[in-house]
Amino acid sequence: MKVVVVGAVAAGPKTASKIIRLRPDTEVTVLDKGQFISFAGCGLPYYLSDVVTDRKELFSTPIGVPRDPAFFDKVKGVRVLTRTEALRIDRKSRQVEAKNLQTGESLSLPYDKLVLATGAKPIIPPIPGIDHKKVFTLHSIEDCEAIRSVLANGSKKAVIIGGGLIGVETAEALVQKNSSVTIVEMLPQILPVLDWEMAKLVELHIRSQGVDVRTETRALEIAGTGDEIRCVRTNNGEIPAEFVILCVGVRPNVSLAKEAGLEIGGTGAIRVNRRMQTSDLDIYAVGDCAESRNLVTGQPCYVPLGSTANKQGRVAALNIAGLEDMFPGVLGSTVCRAFDFTVARTGLSETQARDAGYDVVTCLVPGPDRAHYMPTAKLLMLKLVVDRATGRLLGAQATGPGEAAKRIDVAATAITAGMTVDQVSKLDLSYAPPYAPAMDNLITASDVIRNKISGTMVGITPMELRNKPAYSYFFLDVRSPGEVAKVALPGAVNIPLGMLRDRVNEIPRDKEIVAFCQASTRAYEAALILRANGFDRVKVLDGGVAMWPYEKIGGKR
Amino acid sequence: MKVVVVGAVAAGPKTASKIIRLRPDTEVTVLDKGQFISFAGCGLPYYLSDVVTDRKELFSTPIGVPRDPAFFDKVKGVRVLTRTEALRIDRKSRQVEAKNLQTGESLSLPYDKLVLATGAKPIIPPIPGIDHKKVFTLHSIEDCEAIRSVLANGSKKAVIIGGGLIGVETAEALVQKNSSVTIVEMLPQILPVLDWEMAKLVELHIRSQGVDVRTETRALEIAGTGDEIRCVRTNNGEIPAEFVILCVGVRPNVSLAKEAGLEIGGTGAIRVNRRMQTSDLDIYAVGDCAESRNLVTGQPCYVPLGSTANKQGRVAALNIAGLEDMFPGVLGSTVCRAFDFTVARTGLSETQARDAGYDVVTCLVPGPDRAHYMPTAKLLMLKLVVDRATGRLLGAQATGPGEAAKRIDVAATAITAGMTVDQVSKLDLSYAPPYAPAMDNLITASDVIRNKISGTMVGITPMELRNKPAYSYFFLDVRSPGEVAKVALPGAVNIPLGMLRDRVNEIPRDKEIVAFCQASTRAYEAALILRANGFDRVKVLDGGVAMWPYEKIGGKR
Repeated sequence: MKVVVVGAVAAGPKTASKIIRLRPDTEVTVLDKGQFISFAGCGLPYYLSDVVTDRKELFSTPIGVPRDPAFFDKVKGVRVLTRTEALRIDRKSRQVEAKNLQTGESLSLPYDKLVLATGAKPIIPPIPGIDHKKVFTLHSIEDCEAIRSVLANGSKKAVIIGGGLIGVETAEALVQKNSSVTIVEMLPQILPVLDWEMAKLVELHIRSQGVDVRTETRALEIAGTGDEIRCVRTNNGEIPAEFVILCVGVRPNVSLAKEAGLEIGGTGAIRVNRRMQTSDLDIYAVGDCAESRNLVTGQPCYVPLGSTANKQGRVAALNIAGLEDMFPGVLGSTVCRAFDFTVARTGLSETQARDAGYDVVTCLVPGPDRAHYMPTAKLLMLKLVVDRATGRLLGAQATGPGEAAKRIDVAATAITAGMTVDQVSKLDLSYAPPYAPAMDNLITASDVIRNKISGTMVGITPMELRNKPAYSYFFLDVRSPGEVAKVALPGAVNIPLGMLRDRVNEIPRDKEIVAFCQASTRAYEAALILRANGFDRVKVLDGGVAMWPYEKIGGKR
Repeated sequence: MKVVVVGAVAAGPKTASKIIRLRPDTEVTVLDKGQFISFAGCGLPYYLSDVVTDRKELFSTPIGVPRDPAFFDKVKGVRVLTRTEALRIDRKSRQVEAKNLQTGESLSLPYDKLVLATGAKPIIPPIPGIDHKKVFTLHSIEDCEAIRSVLANGSKKAVIIGGGLIGVETAEALVQKNSSVTIVEMLPQILPVLDWEMAKLVELHIRSQGVDVRTETRALEIAGTGDEIRCVRTNNGEIPAEFVILCVGVRPNVSLAKEAGLEIGGTGAIRVNRRMQTSDLDIYAVGDCAESRNLVTGQPCYVPLGSTANKQGRVAALNIAGLEDMFPGVLGSTVCRAFDFTVARTGLSETQARDAGYDVVTCLVPGPDRAHYMPTAKLLMLKLVVDRATGRLLGAQATGPGEAAKRIDVAATAITAGMTVDQVSKLDLSYAPPYAPAMDNLITASDVIRNKISGTMVGITPMELRNKPAYSYFFLDVRSPGEVAKVALPGAVNIPLGMLRDRVNEIPRDKEIVAFCQASTRAYEAALILRANGFDRVKVLDGGVAMWPYEKIGGKR
């Protein structure tokens, strides 16, 4: 059997190697127009910041062997042709026409099965000046080297267009290289994989690290002369810049598939079934060029990620080898580092869940990520998105300096299994003071949702509160005076929780009460005390002071 | 409604507070014979080592308010009676007879519902000298203070009897306080929650930190004079000691329940149903005095943990308040720190699974816990236990300096959901280089199991290999000569993977081949190459050099 694989970055080599492992008699040829193959694209921001000091590490195995064509030949038994571009698929005669970019030579590669792992390319917005040589993307080793040399030449002022995951990772890398960075984002928030208030908490942290973040700002022109950029002109004024990095996202490389008449999905990526077969069952598509399916909604989606690419490659290989395997889909699980914060999410955001027609109940739960008395404990801010009708967990988001990835991976597993918050709240998660609080953050958050669904607790989100006229509610801060002196929310009246039972007469009976504290635990106690004292309209501010996404009085985040 | 709660450490206060939250008109009384209530017992080793510097933190809320009787009264509306011992339950007249230990006064506390949260107490083995005043347990603040004062007086030589979780945590604490520590363990391994080879890897690490570990060693006598201990006499000789800490485990406090005629389970703990009701449906038992149920086997078990106590307390409270909630059971999930290693496990160990009648397949998979090119990447060593017939994940164990708790929590969630390794291998776990490899360790391990079940890979455990006569197999090390020079396994022949195709004639055809490398990835490739070259008896050593639990040649772990 002859297998041709187009693309040798992530999903391609994985598919090729696995086929050979299962069927050593297969003749597998991988071609790639690039020079660097099987490299860790996700590591580029860390090579940019010198966290990874040698670029060779990005295309070596864990023990330092370069994953070059010789390695694939010797070790894997796979033939890899670099600098070789696939030009056309002839589906009738089952061959790929290709060209050696160094010699100009043409090749015809016959196949029984063809695997498209053509990846994605950065989106280049059509802005005047976008072709300037100091405008970069961060998608290849070459991109990275070009940015490194601009930095080495002393350029300091960077504008990053696009505040998504790569934009934020790049901002961190550039700040570590002593650049001054502005992120320009068209949307009202950075990190659109998060809901607004969660993204805002990350934005506040990024700002505290010296990054200027401009949301609802559209880059209109990159202005400068031949060699130098002067500024990025936006709808909100000019931003001085010496170089610009485009992090607007990526688009799947589908031209080869499209020209061959393969079906392209609504997301713009190649449509595949769960075996990773395209509309031509002898042609597979894997990795960043392939469409995926959201496990919660069942709808097609496009979430290009190295982790998914590897899994899809294995599934394609098993099916090509005559075994059977299915790729069920993704949850859009994501994690990224943003300075001292981790940002992680999985499943549906609140916005996505509402768009999908769910009646959702959410919570914002801040808390220490391990036993609070451990000096290593750090703040973790968690949001859950739950289907009110069934109690089923639909999505989770986490940020802060605390251990977010663990909780998001557990949530991803629970969502995949269709668990309800009742079930999540009973999970036997591992506990010891250096690793988790006795009630894990995810379990506490599930219990908060259960309290909300059962009516034991009535919550109000910061955004809902923001939309209420100030005269319509009594804003009750039940923290200690010492905490209030450090940082407060505008318009609040302070009655510490311990005094509430004695000072209940100070609270108006003709208004809705919105109680809050640092993390909402005490506010919940306060609401129960007030309710027991005959107040029937008491709400608890979701997330308390810790997760308040608007301005505060005094103090610093 | 009147509720009496006996015990005010963890499950008791949780149950009491939650009842009041749900039914503010309930009269809840909590009694405890101790002085310190609602304290974080799991934090004691960290107070001993000065990681937690102020013991007040162990019984304060996250914002530093002491959880004392005044706090429970003011904030929670719960009456707490400290230094008050429950003496007898009169089930007929529904009251608890108690005694104030300070005044000697007797009390009769009537109840509609009674909650037993009587906890557990350390097991004291019946050894001569065990009553010596320098023999301690580590179960209470008072214990901790006593040990601290012995340390403050300059004692250095400690013997810890018992190598379980608390024993290991205590060893770390004492080493941090500059003690020289010997752990004495009766069984052939420390940490019996792990399988032998995983425990051995932890033991090797603990030894490298200067702790002397004596397994299969039974303490026979604690010898000394009135004020001073001289040594611990064992079946393997005398071990010099200035003080001794007993970490032999705990036993549930059930005398009150037993005398009242409540059913005691085979584990020695109070038998409860899923609502946490004892055999008297008006009496609940929660926390360390109550029996639990293993979620995999369905069998009763006893796993006292603060995390479980909190969940059970909530379940009991909901049922007492007239709502309905069920506690499904536990997986024995555990995590603990052992110097630079994390030790974590969930579900069934291999031994437990075999005892429960499963035909198991296991794997040992070492690997970096994040992208290998990140300088923060650390070794994580993972073992999975899987039911061969169904592919269902039954248990997982992890250790090493890498991020173990995350993988174990995901495994716990997957086991709870009844997932197979096929399903686990497709989980959309969050990925970015600072947090995980593109193929998460758990996903790689699941794929290894899938390869084993499908026959693509034939593994052999270190223990199986150890039982084979050396002449019966060819031991093939496919690492690079540089790696072999650093550390090697006895009796192995080195042919680097890259040369294997060319040097295949050096391998005997009349013997079984056992291939290995550092982590087994290359050995797997080697096995496939050999199989393609007509060798049909090729096995891959599970876990490679990284997880070899026996002696090595040269190098250091």
